[in-house]
Amino acid sequence: MSAIDTARHEQIRQAFAEVMTFAPPEPENPAAWHMLQFVFGDVWQRPGLSRRDRHFVTLPCVAAADAEGPLRDHVYAALNSGDLTITEMRESVLHFAVYGGWPKASRLNMVVDEQWARIHAERGQDVPPPDPLLPLTTPNDPEDRLATGAQAFKEVNCLPYAPDRDNPFHGAGILNFVFGEMWLRPGLGMRERRLITVACVAFQDAPYPIVSHVYAAMKSRELSFSEMEEITVHFGAYYGWPKAAHLSQVVADQQRRVTEEWAAEGSAPA
Amino acid sequence: MSAIDTARHEQIRQAFAEVMTFAPPEPENPAAWHMLQFVFGDVWQRPGLSRRDRHFVTLPCVAAADAEGPLRDHVYAALNSGDLTITEMRESVLHFAVYGGWPKASRLNMVVDEQWARIHAERGQDVPPPDPLLPLTTPNDPEDRLATGAQAFKEVNCLPYAPDRDNPFHGAGILNFVFGEMWLRPGLGMRERRLITVACVAFQDAPYPIVSHVYAAMKSRELSFSEMEEITVHFGAYYGWPKAAHLSQVVADQQRRVTEEWAAEGSAPA
Amino acid sequence: MSAIDTARHEQIRQAFAEVMTFAPPEPENPAAWHMLQFVFGDVWQRPGLSRRDRHFVTLPCVAAADAEGPLRDHVYAALNSGDLTITEMRESVLHFAVYGGWPKASRLNMVVDEQWARIHAERGQDVPPPDPLLPLTTPNDPEDRLATGAQAFKEVNCLPYAPDRDNPFHGAGILNFVFGEMWLRPGLGMRERRLITVACVAFQDAPYPIVSHVYAAMKSRELSFSEMEEITVHFGAYYGWPKAAHLSQVVADQQRRVTEEWAAEGSAPA
Repeated sequence: MSAIDTARHEQIRQAFAEVMTFAPPEPENPAAWHMLQFVFGDVWQRPGLSRRDRHFVTLPCVAAADAEGPLRDHVYAALNSGDLTITEMRESVLHFAVYGGWPKASRLNMVVDEQWARIHAERGQDVPPPDPLLPLTTPNDPEDRLATGAQAFKEVNCLPYAPDRDNPFHGAGILNFVFGEMWLRPGLGMRERRLITVACVAFQDAPYPIVSHVYAAMKSRELSFSEMEEITVHFGAYYGWPKAAHLSQVVADQQRRVTEEWAAEGSAPA
Repeated sequence: MSAIDTARHEQIRQAFAEVMTFAPPEPENPAAWHMLQFVFGDVWQRPGLSRRDRHFVTLPCVAAADAEGPLRDHVYAALNSGDLTITEMRESVLHFAVYGGWPKASRLNMVVDEQWARIHAERGQDVPPPDPLLPLTTPNDPEDRLATGAQAFKEVNCLPYAPDRDNPFHGAGILNFVFGEMWLRPGLGMRERRLITVACVAFQDAPYPIVSHVYAAMKSRELSFSEMEEITVHFGAYYGWPKAAHLSQVVADQQRRVTEEWAAEGSAPA
Repeated sequence: MSAIDTARHEQIRQAFAEVMTFAPPEPENPAAWHMLQFVFGDVWQRPGLSRRDRHFVTLPCVAAADAEGPLRDHVYAALNSGDLTITEMRESVLHFAVYGGWPKASRLNMVVDEQWARIHAERGQDVPPPDPLLPLTTPNDPEDRLATGAQAFKEVNCLPYAPDRDNPFHGAGILNFVFGEMWLRPGLGMRERRLITVACVAFQDAPYPIVSHVYAAMKSRELSFSEMEEITVHFGAYYGWPKAAHLSQVVADQQRRVTEEWAAEGSAPA
């Protein structure tokens, strides 16, 4: 191996270790080096999103992709680096359950328990007790809860209306639970919930949710236009370019829509 | 085209029309005939599961797969045939949201509205008003609700324990909503919820949920051993052979486990 | 079991063994026989694509589907049969990473290492050293690289234009890496890259990439119309009927488009 190769490999090793908090495997083949170089030496080093932001995009992608090794490694890295607190990680699992499906969230939850225990074992510490679930901050009464859910639905989605309650998916699911409780839980910021949601709607790629969540994330100014573009690149590395190409198209369309709306409202441009 | 081909094509056309309630497209290429023959001429005609049962396996697969045309066609067929009532279909959307992710459920919900309107338009009828959401049959008080959820968790999963509440995924999600409300809703039977769930855990393929739901469906005797095997074939046609091969392995393993448990308990064998 | 059943089972066993290079499991239930018969006794035996071609469609489907057992078996079969060289397999992993996402590719890469070692252990041989990564055949200078990427983008996609560089997804991702480097790597032919790409855009099923890659594969004449139809059936077996039905529709539409373009250009028809 030449001096140039050695220096290049060392650079990739350092980039990997900085993100993952442990040394990279020594790939047995050049194609694997190539992937490490692109993902860690290139994508994770890009400006425009912080390393913390990138974890919130990465975790849903890795949890959806079912690759056990990368899932363990990325959960470990996000917690061991201190980029995410355990409270944020646990709320992220619930948020992911809704947008990515509960079976995959169930595994993610087990991996979080396992890696959290591992980190404490490595540090010779006891695992601290979890935050208590109750009391909830959201109303118990079904009518109040549906009203709270309808209000949160409008705010999160930047829409003037909420769906009809007399449909189990909308009433019992979306208004009662997803917006009446899940999005309103403390422990995870709106920016972080946006990052997770955009990654999930991008891999689920149902036509309307990807549009509505990309729109609302930018319209609310919780994610900027350029941050959303940067999410597209990061998502492409973790979930593949075809879905990223679709996301990129949706982002461009919704940037135009938001720009026009802001102009019509007399709001400041992006 | 020979007389044999013509007779064979006619047989496939009739099988398709019986399931789908409309005439098949005339495939433009022989490869497409081959798929129609396998799916409609073969799999849907097999004994062991009713046409109604097969709809509950098919719908989550088609909703997960994002294929717009087949999704519309299968929702139409399930409702137009009368195999599913609209109430069952709407509860199925909520159940699918939990196990397959809300973005894909959102699209499925739109397709249900659209096809239900289409069926009534074709019949020259008005769309009837929906069932009212409230009153809920489950408790409002958070403590009662968590207790109800823990009890339902044990019964549905055929387990002697329930997860700890002080974890947002388990407490706010699984106990409070998934088992404290969703599984307990009227409008859809346990057998039907089992069919949907097994299809969803099979395409999500997280290691533990596929095992626990296949086990519980058979242990509860809500699905028989041979019905579960038949689900594997139907699922294979709709979500592909590799995931079906994994499901088939899980089914065989859990059949052994359930058989041993029944023997130890002195219960009747399968 | 009757003599007819026995002969039929023996036929399926032989078909399986020919593709997979090892004897099939003895399925414990008749439903599993049915799947083996369809996949190995029927689909893999069809004319129109070689066994080698079918491996390039199968591998991305199995890697995307996350079924660990079938993934190991198919990687083993492709290498043990000699249908793919190890260099082709390793380049296929990188190509798959781009179109199917890094986490799933990371697992595939581990399975390739494991099965390659297993094959050599079975043969009592040492694993040979891998091909060296460097020197790369693509330019280092960023401007040259973007220009190379733009040219390759036009050629691979059969389009007269390339996307704008001043967008992270397009510039840093598509032009710099995907077309400026990945598609241009030696070690895997264009036909093989087409087969992998079509399988990936079919399971990812983002609206535009499935259209553009099916179009370009036929327009470039690197895959014929009938080969593309045959891919649809093979893909259906490995990723399910609904996505295959969508692919089939895209193929029919793009066959019409390519036929019209060839007529307008005075080129030979398909």
